[in-house]
Amino acid sequence: MSEYKHVALIGLGLIAGSISLAIRRAGMDTKITGTARSAETREIALKIGLIDAVFDTAAEAVKGADLVILAVPIGAMGVVAEEIGPHIKAGATVTDVGSVKGAVITAVGPHLNDNVHFIPGHPMAGTEKSGPEAGFAHLFDNRWCLLTPPEGTDADAIAKLTGFWQKLGAMVKIMEAEHHDLVAVVISHAPHLIAYTMVGVADDMSRVTKQEVVNYSAAGFRDFTRIAASDPTMWRDVFLHNKDATLEVLGRFTEELSALQRAIRNGDGDFLFDYFTRTRNIRRSIIDAGQDTDAVDFGRAAKKPESQE
Amino acid sequence: MSEYKHVALIGLGLIAGSISLAIRRAGMDTKITGTARSAETREIALKIGLIDAVFDTAAEAVKGADLVILAVPIGAMGVVAEEIGPHIKAGATVTDVGSVKGAVITAVGPHLNDNVHFIPGHPMAGTEKSGPEAGFAHLFDNRWCLLTPPEGTDADAIAKLTGFWQKLGAMVKIMEAEHHDLVAVVISHAPHLIAYTMVGVADDMSRVTKQEVVNYSAAGFRDFTRIAASDPTMWRDVFLHNKDATLEVLGRFTEELSALQRAIRNGDGDFLFDYFTRTRNIRRSIIDAGQDTDAVDFGRAAKKPESQE
Repeated sequence: MSEYKHVALIGLGLIAGSISLAIRRAGMDTKITGTARSAETREIALKIGLIDAVFDTAAEAVKGADLVILAVPIGAMGVVAEEIGPHIKAGATVTDVGSVKGAVITAVGPHLNDNVHFIPGHPMAGTEKSGPEAGFAHLFDNRWCLLTPPEGTDADAIAKLTGFWQKLGAMVKIMEAEHHDLVAVVISHAPHLIAYTMVGVADDMSRVTKQEVVNYSAAGFRDFTRIAASDPTMWRDVFLHNKDATLEVLGRFTEELSALQRAIRNGDGDFLFDYFTRTRNIRRSIIDAGQDTDAVDFGRAAKKPESQE
Repeated sequence: MSEYKHVALIGLGLIAGSISLAIRRAGMDTKITGTARSAETREIALKIGLIDAVFDTAAEAVKGADLVILAVPIGAMGVVAEEIGPHIKAGATVTDVGSVKGAVITAVGPHLNDNVHFIPGHPMAGTEKSGPEAGFAHLFDNRWCLLTPPEGTDADAIAKLTGFWQKLGAMVKIMEAEHHDLVAVVISHAPHLIAYTMVGVADDMSRVTKQEVVNYSAAGFRDFTRIAASDPTMWRDVFLHNKDATLEVLGRFTEELSALQRAIRNGDGDFLFDYFTRTRNIRRSIIDAGQDTDAVDFGRAAKKPESQE
């Protein structure tokens, strides 16, 4: 399977940056062009070598590209697609890295010519950092990338994009967009919203000082703050564009939390014990599947005590 | 300030094991005796050198000790205190490492003689592992240990216990028990319950397979599973014995989550963006305070892709 000779990155944040670095790591003979909304981001991306050529507009950046990757917040996908639609080479593939697939298909699809292959995608990896300098070459190693091509999409185009992601280190799964959007809520969107909520509550409790929250965070809370440090624009758009699935899972969550609150109020220790035992097994499976480290505390480096009060 | 010549550990899990290893690391000339409910735990603790002498009962283990550390689940504190009360040396200090302080004071206090110093404590550190082999010497380094001595407690006894924890690597803060129990809910108990709940929901969603949850967990969910892998007995007891503060904070959490759900339903992007921006600052403060690593993804080691489907 031949490689893409020219990849265009629209948006130059954590994910696009990591794609570029992984392309280089794989030794692909690929020209990478790109653009971003902010001039500062464009300059940095060019300076640190994420792209061979930078353009002020997406329309220019996609010219001649064999693969166009939309790596902008979900809410910007439609506008970008409208702009680039007429400029995409016949036979090229357009994909994206958005966390929601139904909304992207609705927003992007209508703007693309019939001679372009549109294969929405979602690499299930990320960190709490954002921006062009946040990327790293191994972000996708051993992680899954979900592709949600509409029925009737060209099989060779799918195979080529699959091969591309595999060369970046990822494993690929084909899935229906609607199912993707539910799965993504369970393993990503809902945990993020819940973490944001808990951190917001801690920030807001008048009887607990912010310094107390910060100092004693090692007892569990700090894990939540990492998730709640992710890019606000990206996450705003995720929730606005995956409304139904998000509200469905949050409804289930609230129901379940009510049951646990009730058990606490009634002193039902058996219910709590059984619940807390069951959840241990999932952790084991995730480690066995190579999706997390078994090192305690994620293998956080131990810090030496410093003079601090 | 002289050191304790003889420390008795009642319960030999993660925290007691780490205390023992930190005592050794500090080079203290201290005899360590101990006991645990299970014969297997007692054998392992002796075999791996956590204790100099093991006893079948807590009453024997505390004989002659200058410092008795109760490191059993909250629900077992009262029974243990009743057993050891008559056998504690006059002038000795009794402390504990329980995550709830009000309930421990109520359960333990009445069983101790007046000539014993009772100084409840709570080291704000831990991992998702449990058992005698889970301990490590640097668990308390740069972490806070909260002490909640009742009014009128001997100042020298407090100073001595403070110095002990500092030698183990911790920083010490004196706090009222009731305030502690609220702070602990915000930074530890509520995050744990919420993580347990979210993992339970994921395990329970009939339209999302367990394999999907496991495979795609790197998108956020896996952080929750680490917290939800903690010791079920310990956490059952925490919630049963810190009921009011837990329900108060969960009430605030539910209220806040409802506001975010409403914003999602109404498409209120500004509300979501502002909320998600505010929570970023807390993360920054925690890293600046040395309570977490700034390395992306907690510095989890990148895994090489393995053959996996």
